Parts: sequence; structure tokens; C-alpha cells
Amino acid sequence: MSVRVGLLGATGAVGQRFVQLLHDHPTFEIAAVTASPESAGESYRDAAKWRVDTPIPESVAGMTVIETSAEAIPDDLDLLFSSLPSGVAAEVEPELCRAGHVVSSNSSNERMAEDVPLTIPEVNADHLDLIETQRAERGWDGALVKNPNCSTITMTPTLAALDQFGLSRVHVSTLQAVSGAGYSGVTSMEIIDNVLPYIGGEEEKMETESRKLLGSVEDGELSLHDVEVAASCNRVPSLDGHLENVFAELDENPTAAEVHEALADFAGVDLPSAPEQPIHVFEDPERPQPRLDRMRGQGMQISAGGLRETPEGIQYNCLAHNTIRGAAGASVLNGELLVEEGWV
Amino acid sequence: MSVRVGLLGATGAVGQRFVQLLHDHPTFEIAAVTASPESAGESYRDAAKWRVDTPIPESVAGMTVIETSAEAIPDDLDLLFSSLPSGVAAEVEPELCRAGHVVSSNSSNERMAEDVPLTIPEVNADHLDLIETQRAERGWDGALVKNPNCSTITMTPTLAALDQFGLSRVHVSTLQAVSGAGYSGVTSMEIIDNVLPYIGGEEEKMETESRKLLGSVEDGELSLHDVEVAASCNRVPSLDGHLENVFAELDENPTAAEVHEALADFAGVDLPSAPEQPIHVFEDPERPQPRLDRMRGQGMQISAGGLRETPEGIQYNCLAHNTIRGAAGASVLNGELLVEEGWV
Amino acid sequence: MSVRVGLLGATGAVGQRFVQLLHDHPTFEIAAVTASPESAGESYRDAAKWRVDTPIPESVAGMTVIETSAEAIPDDLDLLFSSLPSGVAAEVEPELCRAGHVVSSNSSNERMAEDVPLTIPEVNADHLDLIETQRAERGWDGALVKNPNCSTITMTPTLAALDQFGLSRVHVSTLQAVSGAGYSGVTSMEIIDNVLPYIGGEEEKMETESRKLLGSVEDGELSLHDVEVAASCNRVPSLDGHLENVFAELDENPTAAEVHEALADFAGVDLPSAPEQPIHVFEDPERPQPRLDRMRGQGMQISAGGLRETPEGIQYNCLAHNTIRGAAGASVLNGELLVEEGWV
Amino acid sequence: MSVRVGLLGATGAVGQRFVQLLHDHPTFEIAAVTASPESAGESYRDAAKWRVDTPIPESVAGMTVIETSAEAIPDDLDLLFSSLPSGVAAEVEPELCRAGHVVSSNSSNERMAEDVPLTIPEVNADHLDLIETQRAERGWDGALVKNPNCSTITMTPTLAALDQFGLSRVHVSTLQAVSGAGYSGVTSMEIIDNVLPYIGGEEEKMETESRKLLGSVEDGELSLHDVEVAASCNRVPSLDGHLENVFAELDENPTAAEVHEALADFAGVDLPSAPEQPIHVFEDPERPQPRLDRMRGQGMQISAGGLRETPEGIQYNCLAHNTIRGAAGASVLNGELLVEEGWV
Repeated sequence: MSVRVGLLGATGAVGQRFVQLLHDHPTFEIAAVTASPESAGESYRDAAKWRVDTPIPESVAGMTVIETSAEAIPDDLDLLFSSLPSGVAAEVEPELCRAGHVVSSNSSNERMAEDVPLTIPEVNADHLDLIETQRAERGWDGALVKNPNCSTITMTPTLAALDQFGLSRVHVSTLQAVSGAGYSGVTSMEIIDNVLPYIGGEEEKMETESRKLLGSVEDGELSLHDVEVAASCNRVPSLDGHLENVFAELDENPTAAEVHEALADFAGVDLPSAPEQPIHVFEDPERPQPRLDRMRGQGMQISAGGLRETPEGIQYNCLAHNTIRGAAGASVLNGELLVEEGWV
Repeated sequence: MSVRVGLLGATGAVGQRFVQLLHDHPTFEIAAVTASPESAGESYRDAAKWRVDTPIPESVAGMTVIETSAEAIPDDLDLLFSSLPSGVAAEVEPELCRAGHVVSSNSSNERMAEDVPLTIPEVNADHLDLIETQRAERGWDGALVKNPNCSTITMTPTLAALDQFGLSRVHVSTLQAVSGAGYSGVTSMEIIDNVLPYIGGEEEKMETESRKLLGSVEDGELSLHDVEVAASCNRVPSLDGHLENVFAELDENPTAAEVHEALADFAGVDLPSAPEQPIHVFEDPERPQPRLDRMRGQGMQISAGGLRETPEGIQYNCLAHNTIRGAAGASVLNGELLVEEGWV
Repeated sequence: MSVRVGLLGATGAVGQRFVQLLHDHPTFEIAAVTASPESAGESYRDAAKWRVDTPIPESVAGMTVIETSAEAIPDDLDLLFSSLPSGVAAEVEPELCRAGHVVSSNSSNERMAEDVPLTIPEVNADHLDLIETQRAERGWDGALVKNPNCSTITMTPTLAALDQFGLSRVHVSTLQAVSGAGYSGVTSMEIIDNVLPYIGGEEEKMETESRKLLGSVEDGELSLHDVEVAASCNRVPSLDGHLENVFAELDENPTAAEVHEALADFAGVDLPSAPEQPIHVFEDPERPQPRLDRMRGQGMQISAGGLRETPEGIQYNCLAHNTIRGAAGASVLNGELLVEEGWV
Repeated sequence: MSVRVGLLGATGAVGQRFVQLLHDHPTFEIAAVTASPESAGESYRDAAKWRVDTPIPESVAGMTVIETSAEAIPDDLDLLFSSLPSGVAAEVEPELCRAGHVVSSNSSNERMAEDVPLTIPEVNADHLDLIETQRAERGWDGALVKNPNCSTITMTPTLAALDQFGLSRVHVSTLQAVSGAGYSGVTSMEIIDNVLPYIGGEEEKMETESRKLLGSVEDGELSLHDVEVAASCNRVPSLDGHLENVFAELDENPTAAEVHEALADFAGVDLPSAPEQPIHVFEDPERPQPRLDRMRGQGMQISAGGLRETPEGIQYNCLAHNTIRGAAGASVLNGELLVEEGWV
């Protein structure tokens, strides 16, 4: 079976990761690539200034870019992946869903909407139930599913693994790679020999999205988890891979060994892009490191390490590849889940 | 008045900062420079491969390096500054103090000893009273005074400013510059496009030294502050300037504006190297940044910013130049305090 | 005597360097700052997002930005410095010169025009004679003087010093800092763990501007030097300071020692911003290095090193601070020359 | 057929690349790993602090490291690869060759010896004929074959491709990655926001090794090519991939298009690790770039670009992965050639 997919916003940094991940995917077949009106009509090769460190897939390079608009996008696509700027996404995605398209989106709009599943398959696959609510409330034939922000994805599976110990409060500091801001988001003058202690809106995203992901959906209704999250977000001079220092307060008092086991045993899902083991745990306190460990599991495995007991719980570090597990790969995984669960 | 000072370990990274800071100091005059036996007899110019970005001071360049040993160091020096490796310091410093020398040391040995003042003049100048205890217990004519670790110095003045609100718990993540590990401490292969999530012993230093600094000395006896500190320390690809994300829990509930005022009003000391205002507070959440702000106050002013209220207190960022305010400048300031208070 | 100067394009990266260099200049007084229409009316503090690593000068911070247009710029300014984008400069500078203004410009337009002096005071101060030609041909009351491109400035004084040995051919490779492309010119994704082997138009600038600078002006007429220059230009991950590898073919066969002497003895000029010795020559082949040596002579001294004899001449490295000696400082020095020679 | 190979110096930076390249090689099977006496007896996993960004191969991780000495190395290995420090190599390699081993070595000792083949298979496979001379003169049963220095390998195949136009003189500037100096060769303090304009001995290596590679072997005797090479070598803040700016003087006057064709058509060899096309030529002057292009052809393809005609010939850029094509991969390719030609 082949699922014909369209990539909305296919020429940007995350769009190129989609192309890289999907061009030889076992199920998905790239059938359309869209971009802003200026690029429409060009070949993908010309429209996308290809900057990924593997060669541009020839099968996609020759495709003609179509405009990102509900009219221009063909009806016969089975699934759409979106990495549109959130302003554009906020306009186009609802139109497409109304027209019957199923959209797995990395864009930040509507992530916190009560009837939009915000999903990491290993964490809350059952939130897809919200699609029924969504269809009922919005009168859509299609569906809109979101994945969280890259910094949220890095941390949340580890928090899900710790929830068995009674997760009550989290302090987290991030050391985020520049690719998270897009190709031109961080200038070299800003970041060489420097650190930026602020990423607009990022702290709020981590604080709210994590509570939705860890929350529950019952009878089509969402309840947030009551964990309190305080985040401090920083940009550092690395290319890919967000590292995060987590201090988790737990009601119970697990040992570091018990936490290690809980993280390492966190259950995976049986989807093509999913790593067998979602979280790899290092004994060596010097790991994980962004450059050495971001590509574990083809960039889809999360790493953890540096476990230390604190009076209130545990502190540890976690790492994920921000444009694969944290963006394009996250949407692809959600797309695979949508297929698996029969929504596509 | 001129105070004749000797620099122990004058050729290393911190030693060179000492030379840079002291060569035109209003009170101190560099009268001796020491290094390991292999360099003894060489000119300072030859022994130190000068790597600071201002030219080597000619007055020091021609001095002959003497060996770091109690025998070789002349008796007629008024004050010694030490940036020796802690193993060497642990041997040599006590001998020198026994021989009557007053030593202001940046080395990590004995920082937590109960009769050794660990001092930041703006925070706990009164801890110098421990010198009496030290002399009584150790039978020394001289004295040993320490400054804390660079990552501790960056944070502690801000905590001291917040203590009026009832400081009970601190979570802190650091983004530390490579110079903190010495000239050869971090290789380029380790840190380009990367972050190191672990600095051996650093977390423990921050967790214990801060409690001593914030503690009290009464009748020659030290009590630690009962704040609980949990630290997570990271090395990032910046040259100088440690940035720290602090989450402070406070018994009272000050507003961000009240915290801003408390930080900005934190009282300075009247010493030659001390900045008039110890802590500069930025309104702009994007500041402080290491490269732009580390040299405020000739590298001696601490910066803070990014204040956000949390349910339990306040979160904010702070920054200091790690080899000036956090190392050589810290020892110099302690030396100035020792002179001011009549110990030299 | 105080010369009242206006800064055209005062909020950009080079504009900020102008402010840094001029705010306590012995002769020049900043009397006006201009920017694009969107910023007009704002305070300089608000219009310029200050990114230099010294604090914004308070005397300039409060000035009101005026629009960069011939109408808006007051007549009573004695001298204008321009770091406008070359497209804007090409429109505005001629209007200003026609209106009687003397403009010392860093913008690239008209650098190769036969009646526009392209000047480095230590190299070809006498080219200012072209102003007479310029006025005669263009009917201007004012004057337009240019300084060369940053990569050209770094190399040309060393070539001028070698011309006594019969300079016939030059191969040069550059390792240029990111600040040369302006604040947003090079993204972090482009340059971290990377090198860019191409800078649009830069090679041609080095190849032509150097021949004009080394050329002669007689009876108001310009002759280019007949040296053949081939350049290869690269962007590297450094912030400031262009390093260049030069292979110079010489008719005579000087020894490395003779070349060293020729470089070190190259004559300076007596202007406020000029370093006493224009070129510092290192014996240590590991120097000059951008980070360690770019600030020699307040960023106005050129460094050379690594001299090696080749069968055809000499190879060596040279370095200059690209936004000081290579841009803002170059214009300021030309402004000082214009005052000294009575054109202002 | 399986060839049992030993890796001499298997724990260093290049040694780890050997393991990465060889652990699933079609012909070679890693049968022994050696290191300095301190590591002998440890597992490879413990002895090598694995720093490559793919996981350590399990088949090698469990092997016991043996000491690098003629006595300890088993006789029954078919082929040895060496990345020993040159001092150690100079002692051990001759002993091993005398004992009958065939050694393909990346170490710099003896590269210029008249009876030691210095080989890049695509350039001068016929130089293996020198083995007969070597055996005759040295009385060895084994053989010693060297590959050139990483910076020489990057450039020389392109020069070989241009030799048809009468190559007479070369000026080359290098922008070399830090991995070329080994894991600890360049400290972070040296290279962040900086460039090092000197690499000890590197310029001489490029100037002499290239002439040997391009030279001829007739009747067991070596003649150097008479091209004159002048090199200027720089270290830049990139991890892997040497970029080089080449100015080649040619007797004939080929167009850029003819040079492009000569480079792209340069003939490959039929060996397992050899790329089908040895040199990829980019039209886009912004390529090749180290980070984007170093892994072309599994790190074994050389890239070229930026062709511009000069009065005397051509200028262009070339790039190769310095620890794959320029070191471990170079030795492996020579090993494959030795097998192919029947020396193993």
C-alpha cells in the first residue's frame, strides 16, 4: 500500500527534512510539494536551495512546486504534512481540513486548541480520539493533528516515563541548536562566542504543551496534567540537537537506578519511523551530547543521562534531534499513526 | 602606598589574567611571578605563551620566573595571589601561610574548610573574621583566603540580594564558557557544534560553596545557609562569560519588579576593582549575553535579566566574566579587602 | 576646533562602529545620525539595536534619527560619513556632494570611478588631488572620497611596502570574518562547522581596487598600477578580523629579512586615528591571529607574519580588523586626512 | 575471500575512523587492534573513548587491545593499517615489514623515501613497483606503502587531472578542519572566533609530497614532477573537511569549461572504497563547502568548484574529508590496491 502525501511548505528548513525523511519511506510517497506563490511553477530543485548534508533526492528534485492554497492542492492526496509558517498555516490548514484533507502539522497554531490532538505516539496516541470532537464541532471531513514544539518533544517522553512516580513539578533549562529557528533565524554575529538567553514564546510552549501531552482524553474531552512546569530557554552555537537539563519533583522517592530503568523501559510503538526503544539512557555522565548522539535511531531516539537524585526527586539531561524527532520526524510519525489507526 | 604582590602560577590562563589586571593596579605592584620548576629561570615572556587579547605588559614580560615553592618565594612580599592547580596549592599554600604570607587564592582546595574564609566582598566580607580562628587552630602567622568557583560567583551575589525574600531553594543550570577549563581544558573537537552536559565536580561546588558564602560567621564560627541548591552544569562553545538560569524559591512572594529592584540595589563595596553597582539588571529579556555583556564594569560587574515570576518565587538569568569576576578578579578583590581591613 | 559630522546609515553594523569610534574623537563631533525613513524620528537608542560590545554612548543614544535624504540632512554639517547600502549611496551621495557636502564613504559604489579618490592615507594620500577633477567634471561644490573594500585594505598597505622590490603579480586567499557581511549577512546555519568559499564580487574588488590604490595620480589623472592580482575569497567562522595569505612575485629577490624590514618600516601618517606604525610584523609564524591581534592599535594597525621566501618572491600573511581599519575606521581616517589637507 | 587486517594505533582519532570504515568492509576483516602499552589488555570499548558520531561497532568493541610492538602482533595477519604517531611508526613499521608484514600506513615517516611508494590509487597506482626496489634494498619480505598527508590528498588528484595542460606552478591556500590535528590537537580557546595561520611542517609536506605523487616510476626508480608548489596552510573552526584554494599555472590555456571537463572526467579505479567518479565538479561557485559536501561518496569523493580563468591558468577550490579520503580511507584504498595487485 502506498499513501500519497503532500508537503506544505516543502522548501524551508523543516520542509527539506521532510523530503529527506520521506523520499524512500516504506509507505508514504511524495506526490506534491507546495511553497509560497513566488516559487510556484519552479522545479523543487530550483525553488529549494537544498542545504541538507545528503544530496537532494532526484525523484523530488524534478517535481513542480505548487502554490500553498486550498485551491491549488489536489484532492487526491491521502495525507498532508505541514511545516508552514504559523500565520499561513492558521489560514490554510482549516480550509484543507474542511475540504476533507487529513493534515499532520508541525506548525504552532492551534496546538493548544481543545479539539486538536497534540500527539507524540509513544506518549498519547489515544488523543487521536479528539478528532471525533473536532469533526463534530468544526463540521470537517478531514482532520488536523499537531505535534508539539521541538523543545517540548525532547523532554515530554521522559516526563511520561517518570509519571509513574508522581510527577508534580518540573524546572527545565534548554540548550537549543540554531536550526530550531529556521535557516535564517539566528545570525552568525548573534551566536558565535555567545549564548542567547531567550527564545520568544518558547518557555510558554514548553510549559503548556507538556501538560496537554501528559493529560488525558476521556469521552472526547481533554484534561491537562496538573504538573507545574517552569522553563528557561537558551540558544547555543550548535547546529542540531536540543539538550535539556531537567529537575523533576516526584511524589515518590525513586532511586536513580529506578529512574534509569523507568526511562529505558518506556514503551515504544510499532510504526515505521519509531525507534524500537524510545529513550536511550547513558551511564556516562558526559553523554548525551548533541553532536555525538542526535542521530541515534535515525534521529528519532531520545537520549537521557546524568541522573542524580535530589531531595525532591531527580535531575537528568535529555536530548533529541530538533528537526527530525522534534519537527519533521514528529509529523511523519503522527502521519504513520494516523494511517495505522485508520484515519487515513 | 604600594603593596608588593607575588603571583603563584602566573603563566596559566588565570595567571595571565592576574598579570593583565594587576600590571597597572593603583595599589598592587607585581614583584614576583612563579611557575613550575621547568619554567623557573626563564623570562615571563618566554615562560608564558601570552594568549590574552591585549599585549603582554612590558614591565612583567622581562621578569624572571621563580619556582613555586616556599623556599624560592621571597619573604618580603606583602601579599600572594594564587591560581595554582589545586594539588600544588594544597601543598604550597599552607607552607606559605605558616611562613607568614597572606594568600588570596583562586585554587579550589580548602574552600569548604571551616576556618578558611570563602569570600566575595559584596556578599560576606565579615567572613574574614575566620582568619583569627584559622591562626589559632593552625598556628599560622599568615592567612589563607579563598574565592569561590567561577560558576558559584556568578550566581551568589544575586542570591544574596534575594535572601531578604526568604530564599529556600534554588535550581540552577549553567552555560559555561570554555576558558573556565583552562587553556587546554576543552578541545575543539569536543565543543564545536556541541555542548558538554557535565563538568566534573562543578555541580557539587555550586551546591556547597553558595551555602557557605550566604552563611554567617559569629564568634569565629561558621554556619551554612540552609538554602537547598541543585545545579546542572554545561559547557558551551563560548570563550568567556558564564550564563546561568536560576529558579529561586522564596518564602515571600515578591513581584518581578521588586526582585528587579532588590538586584539593582544590592550594595557595592568601596574597593579599587569593585564595580560601583555589583549587579546590572536588564529590562530586555534577550540580555545579558556572554559576548556583549561580560566586560561590563571591566569584567567585574554581574548582569541579570529575564525575570519571570513563578508560583514559588522567581526565575532569572545571570552572567559574569568567568576569568575576571569569576577567578583572577575575584582574588584581586579579596586582596583589596584584605588590605582595606588591615590584614596586609 | 570641532568638526561637526553627520553619519549616514548610522544604525547598521558599520554605522555602530562609526558611533563607537567617533563619540569621543578629538576633532569630530557627531551632530546628526541618519537611517532609513522607517527609523526617522526615533531616538538612536531605539532605532539602532546596539550590538557592539561596549555600551552605547549616552551622548548619541538620545539623538533623534533623521531620514537619509538630501533634503533632511542639515546644511551646516562640515563632513559626512557614509556606510549606506551601495544602492542607496549611489542615489544620495551625488546629491549631497552637489549640494556642497564633503562625503567620506565606505559604500562600494563609484570606488573605481576615475575621478573619485579611493584612499588609504598611508598608501595614496595624494589621490585626493582627484577632487579637483571631480569638481570640474561633475560641477560639484562638495566632494566624494571612498575607502576600499575591507579585504583590499588588509592587503594593500603591505603591497605598497613591497612595491620597492618590483611588485609584478599577487595571488591572495582570504579568510574573512562574518561581520564583513553585515549583521545578518551570514546565518549561523551557513557557517558553524563550515567555510563558505565564495563572496559575491569580493574577488573582483580586491583585484581592481588594489591596482587603483597602488596607482598614481598626475595632473589630475589616474593610472592604475600594472600588478596582476588574483584573489580567492572565503568566509570563515570568526567574528572580526580578515586574515589573508599573500603570495607576491617581485622583480628583485629580497630576503625574508629585507621584506620584514620593508613592512615594519612602512611610513605612517600623522592623523588622530592612525597607528604610529601602520604594519606590525610578527616573528612568530603562528601570528597574526584574528582574535588575538585584530585590536592592535585600537583596531587600526595591520599585522603581518609568516614570511617565507619563494622562488619568485615572498609569501606572508596579513590581518586587519575588518569593521574598524577595514570600514568605519578607514572612512574616519580619510575624514581626518580631508580636514588635514584643508578640504573640510 | 576475507583479508584479516590489524589496526596499529586503533584508539586515536584516525584509528577510530579505520574501525568505522572497516567493520563492515566487503573484503577486510578486523582481526587485531593495537594501542600503546597502557591500553594493552583492555577491551577496545574501554581503551578507545569512542567519539565518532556513529555507534561503536559491537564486533570490535569487545576485542582485546594488544600492544603496538613487533613481538605482540600476530604473524597470521594478512595486512596491517597504521595510524601510529610518526615517532612510533618510524620504529615499529620497519620491524614489521622485515618480519614479512605488508603495511599500509597513514603515518608521515618515510613518505618521501625514494623506495617507499606514496600512493593515491587514482593518481599513481603504478608507484607500487617501488616495492621491488624496497625489498631489494632493505631485505624485507613485507612492504611499506604510504598515503600522503590529508592536505596533499585533497589537492593532488585535481592537479593530476590538470597535468595534461602542462602544470608548471601551483599556489595553494588551505582552510583545514581541526580533526586534522587529532582529537586534542587544537584547543577550543585557540580556535573559537579565530583562525590559526600556521600548521607546523604542513606547507613543506604539500610542496614535496605532491611532486612525488605526480612524478613517475620507471625501472624501479622515482622521478619527482617538476611542478613548483607554494603552500600556505591555515586551521579554521570546522570539524572535518579541508577546503583548498588553488591557483594553477598551465603551459596551455584551457578554458574554464575544458578544466571542468578534465576534472569531472578524471578516471576512477575499480576498488571497493573508491568513488565511481573521483572528482565531483560544482557549477555553483558557493560549493563545495566542508559541512555540506565532505561526505560525498562516503567521504571518499573529492569536490571541486569556483573555476575562474586567470592569465596564467586556472583558479579553483577543492575539498575532501580529511580523516576519511585524507587519512583512514586513503590507507584502506591503498590496502585494497595492494590486494588487487597481488601484494597481499
